[in-house]
Amino acid sequence: MSTIDLHQVRVTDSLFGGYIQLLAEKVLPYQWQVLSDQLPGNAKTYCVENFRIAAGQKQGGHGGAIFQDTDLYKWLEAVAYCIAAGYRDELEPLADQVVELLAAAQCEDGYLNTYITIEHPDRRWANLTEGHELYGAGHLIEAAVAYYQATGKRALLDVGIRFADLIDRVFGEEEGKCHGYPGHQEIELALVRLYRVTQEKRYLSLARYFISERGKAPNYLMQERARNHPFPFEIFPEFMEYDELYAQTHQPPVHQTTAEGHAVRALYMYSAMAELAIYSEDDALRNACRKLYENIVERRMYITGGVGSSGKLERFTTDYDLPNDTMYCESCASVALMMFGQRMAELTGEATYYDTVERALMNTVLAGISAGGDRYFYVNPLEVWPANCLASTSMSHVKPVRQPWFPCACCPPNIARTLASVGQYIYSVQSGAVCGNQFISSTFRHAFGNADFALELKSSYMRDGCVTLKATLSGDARIRLKVRVPGYMQHASFTLNGRRDQPEKEQGYTCWTLENAGTYTIDIRAEVRPVFVAANLHVRADAGKAAVSKGPFVYCFEETDNGANLANLPIRTDAPLTETAPLEQLPGELPTLETDGERIVQSIEQTESLYGQAAFKTEKQRLKAIPYFQWCNRKPGEMTVFLPVSR
Amino acid sequence: MSTIDLHQVRVTDSLFGGYIQLLAEKVLPYQWQVLSDQLPGNAKTYCVENFRIAAGQKQGGHGGAIFQDTDLYKWLEAVAYCIAAGYRDELEPLADQVVELLAAAQCEDGYLNTYITIEHPDRRWANLTEGHELYGAGHLIEAAVAYYQATGKRALLDVGIRFADLIDRVFGEEEGKCHGYPGHQEIELALVRLYRVTQEKRYLSLARYFISERGKAPNYLMQERARNHPFPFEIFPEFMEYDELYAQTHQPPVHQTTAEGHAVRALYMYSAMAELAIYSEDDALRNACRKLYENIVERRMYITGGVGSSGKLERFTTDYDLPNDTMYCESCASVALMMFGQRMAELTGEATYYDTVERALMNTVLAGISAGGDRYFYVNPLEVWPANCLASTSMSHVKPVRQPWFPCACCPPNIARTLASVGQYIYSVQSGAVCGNQFISSTFRHAFGNADFALELKSSYMRDGCVTLKATLSGDARIRLKVRVPGYMQHASFTLNGRRDQPEKEQGYTCWTLENAGTYTIDIRAEVRPVFVAANLHVRADAGKAAVSKGPFVYCFEETDNGANLANLPIRTDAPLTETAPLEQLPGELPTLETDGERIVQSIEQTESLYGQAAFKTEKQRLKAIPYFQWCNRKPGEMTVFLPVSR
Repeated sequence: MSTIDLHQVRVTDSLFGGYIQLLAEKVLPYQWQVLSDQLPGNAKTYCVENFRIAAGQKQGGHGGAIFQDTDLYKWLEAVAYCIAAGYRDELEPLADQVVELLAAAQCEDGYLNTYITIEHPDRRWANLTEGHELYGAGHLIEAAVAYYQATGKRALLDVGIRFADLIDRVFGEEEGKCHGYPGHQEIELALVRLYRVTQEKRYLSLARYFISERGKAPNYLMQERARNHPFPFEIFPEFMEYDELYAQTHQPPVHQTTAEGHAVRALYMYSAMAELAIYSEDDALRNACRKLYENIVERRMYITGGVGSSGKLERFTTDYDLPNDTMYCESCASVALMMFGQRMAELTGEATYYDTVERALMNTVLAGISAGGDRYFYVNPLEVWPANCLASTSMSHVKPVRQPWFPCACCPPNIARTLASVGQYIYSVQSGAVCGNQFISSTFRHAFGNADFALELKSSYMRDGCVTLKATLSGDARIRLKVRVPGYMQHASFTLNGRRDQPEKEQGYTCWTLENAGTYTIDIRAEVRPVFVAANLHVRADAGKAAVSKGPFVYCFEETDNGANLANLPIRTDAPLTETAPLEQLPGELPTLETDGERIVQSIEQTESLYGQAAFKTEKQRLKAIPYFQWCNRKPGEMTVFLPVSR
Repeated sequence: MSTIDLHQVRVTDSLFGGYIQLLAEKVLPYQWQVLSDQLPGNAKTYCVENFRIAAGQKQGGHGGAIFQDTDLYKWLEAVAYCIAAGYRDELEPLADQVVELLAAAQCEDGYLNTYITIEHPDRRWANLTEGHELYGAGHLIEAAVAYYQATGKRALLDVGIRFADLIDRVFGEEEGKCHGYPGHQEIELALVRLYRVTQEKRYLSLARYFISERGKAPNYLMQERARNHPFPFEIFPEFMEYDELYAQTHQPPVHQTTAEGHAVRALYMYSAMAELAIYSEDDALRNACRKLYENIVERRMYITGGVGSSGKLERFTTDYDLPNDTMYCESCASVALMMFGQRMAELTGEATYYDTVERALMNTVLAGISAGGDRYFYVNPLEVWPANCLASTSMSHVKPVRQPWFPCACCPPNIARTLASVGQYIYSVQSGAVCGNQFISSTFRHAFGNADFALELKSSYMRDGCVTLKATLSGDARIRLKVRVPGYMQHASFTLNGRRDQPEKEQGYTCWTLENAGTYTIDIRAEVRPVFVAANLHVRADAGKAAVSKGPFVYCFEETDNGANLANLPIRTDAPLTETAPLEQLPGELPTLETDGERIVQSIEQTESLYGQAAFKTEKQRLKAIPYFQWCNRKPGEMTVFLPVSR
């Protein structure tokens, strides 16, 4: 979580501002209906009901996943961000009731997990590998901090603190404490956030403990599995293949150099490591973070900012292994990648990390939610042929259309909390400096000592390459305004108050120094052209293929625009790419792209046979691409990002 | 199993004769060492030991898979074929000891299954879904018939008959009998073979019962699962996803029109259905067989004769879903496809079914065994990038090198019994006719009434397009000699006793009528050129790609000949394909092929980046292909069958 207060940001951008409004007015009410089992036709989630049972307000057993609580926590976190964005009246009364419920469900000693409380009250922390208790605690604490920051109300923060204090009493390297750590990381991030808001160093130390204990020999989780085998409650059948890499326990995190295992767990951990490196000034940890980040963005990330190449166990695999159809690319993993990038930028001061934040946000995270806000992708393929996403195929984890909900529903509220807090990815504050990290139209206010700083960002770079920043400084101060001008804004020129300017560059930022009270208007003019893009030669899945993009948006080809059997559509990277009208029914007013390609209309003479002597014939075909995140908002069907290049 | 007696065939072909010699002299002794736990360094298989325990000759528990018995049965079946091929002295003494052991392990009432006998003697037939008891019985009976036919000794046949009689008492539609059927088909095939050798119609009826009961509502296997859930002994974790399609119980087999579920189970069943259609003259069953066959060879089969597109559950998926890297293509499934093709040819009299037999044999089945005979592929990919066949990927089921053995070791002895009995796929006998179905050099003898027929087949079509058949008829008879001249033998011309001949065609066979005692020499001259081949447009995985083949052999490109990163090697289908020298160290004396292709040497300007603006550069590269079945006999590395076509 960035250093800014979301009250300081107002997102005015039609795309992202639109999502925040959609979230507040439609998506979060929809998700509440789902979580409280009031949505007609939706399978019961038991999420709110579990808390009622744990609070003694209702009788019954636990329902849904063992980590079902976290859906409500993330929902509440998203609510908090919408409240900070100005939707207090709509959301706060309900949220306050939820906070009351959570407080009522909390045990006297601070423990809060409805599954354990209802089903196995005597088995706390017995299955850290799968149990998700610390994961749940983390999401509770994140929601608590967010709700406190948004509303100033302490009730939920106190719930979070009580739980954190209990965890601090239970876990640690001291003798007599449990030397375990979570199977699913998240608590570490949350504890750092709790430290940020409380300044209580115990939370920072506890977060550091969870990172430093991890990967030590003997391996706690493996010992736990051996001790408890079969577990008192075994939850995931896939865990028969549980291994140390899957759990990021193959080495101490500080020695890890490649992104391994379950992608969300890994990235939550790396994010926490980066934050801890900030506070501890730990060079080893900082270097580990840098290596892990580089391994991801140089070897293990999709062009859409998706991560997790294996549909099996939702995990990282090996360098350059980036299959377009069998992958996982969980929406949550890209949310986590945004977090990691943001924290790396905070750790290093370098703008470049926001390239990755932007890539993940503008493509995979946005793709995870439908234009209407009530349908979601868990898995985000770069190539879909719906007919083979069957239960009988290796692709059954890929859903060719967004779903109303999931039995494991981590993604919908995770996307919600991310989009609701998009302001944190737009701006950051350094000592005496404001960083503008994304050209998403918005306003930003911040006080530097006695001086008020106000910024108005108006961006239309996807239409005309233009961005205007109007900064007003009231009171005397020396403020650095640092703006990340992305690489896709080519031949950028700058004017300051109407005069041609040649600003300096620093750590990837274009920088201005504002030294006196007054208003400073910066205009940026650049070319943002659609381009053909390709992958590194080592990415076998994309060999000889190209995609199209404009700005941060990766585009894709849909069956509804290009006909079925997209694999048979070669493109020419020397053909012109033409911008055409945005799709009216979809958000963002982003241009569609067209180019002259081909369609292979024959491969063998006997066209009904399965194989035969090669006899290729092609015809010209005009190809149309739309932004990847918009796919499957019109007709379901085939989709692909990459097409083969004909030369 | 064909109508011929393997004593009648001698395979003289350097490739296949070489394999039979290798099997008799090296492979079967090696496999015996493995099965009897005498191979140093190999994980214990318990296979022979289980029989010793069941026979009361040893104490202990059952080890290995629940169907471990079948490895020994298939080994024994292969031994029988080698004995028929002339390797009696080497193999029969050991085989007789094994037969004695099996007889000793059989229960008094005829039951024989070491897992159940040792571990759950009171739970016979309780888990037909997973238990594999009927599957084991089937392989026992197949071995028994083969050993009887090879040696004339009845001891094992009697063991098989006793078990078959027990099964006949237990299962059937009559009241009081169990109305179940096998989770893994195989018994059906075996019972038809037992009928062929005993002429006991009960076995045919029992086979027909197993087919006709299957798929009836309510579904026996699903009811069993519900009744026993969790099973008294649950064996396969993957069976959590067990479904009716997987088990070919979604409909009565006679109504099935698409190949579904576990590929080996499906194809064993289809093979049995085709045989039953022969004996029952059941048109509905015949039509079902034809539809299933067509669905496979027109929609669901790899160019290598592999089947089973999904690595998950080893199953058929959907039409045209033929991924080259994530597939299963189990060696056993191609063995089973050979069986199905052979029985379809017997059912219909049509030569065309042997195209599929040949495709499966010459590519996937041969690929399943190393040149040295002691390493095996279970899964047969068409594209391998070893670095991503890791436990952490969706490709962990793909082994990039042949293995010395497997925990589930169905394939090695299945390949052995298939290659040892290859004669049954070369010749078949119809009423008054001999069919030559494969141009594999060999001799064949058969008596038609009082007339002896002898054939000498000399084939060098892969070298020069020539095949010579020398038929000698002693005694007067009217014999039709029907020869399948494959489609890849182009512009075939024929001479009979040196004179130009224009033989008639019948059901895909080229036919001669031999009416008087004497010798008839038929020479066939044809062109067998290497060609570029491609897949149907609907096969997305092969879109815009081509492979090379010559005759029945699909070729592949290996890293050792072409460098790493084969995905970056486009070929031109208009370039010449040149035949070059055979690889000396590999069997078959088959030419290698070369063509002028390219290598993509740059895809983006910043060659270390993961993505960038497309900037493709290529260089000319000479590409070399070898027969697919020979892959991974030199250096391990990447391999691919299909390459992208540059146009």
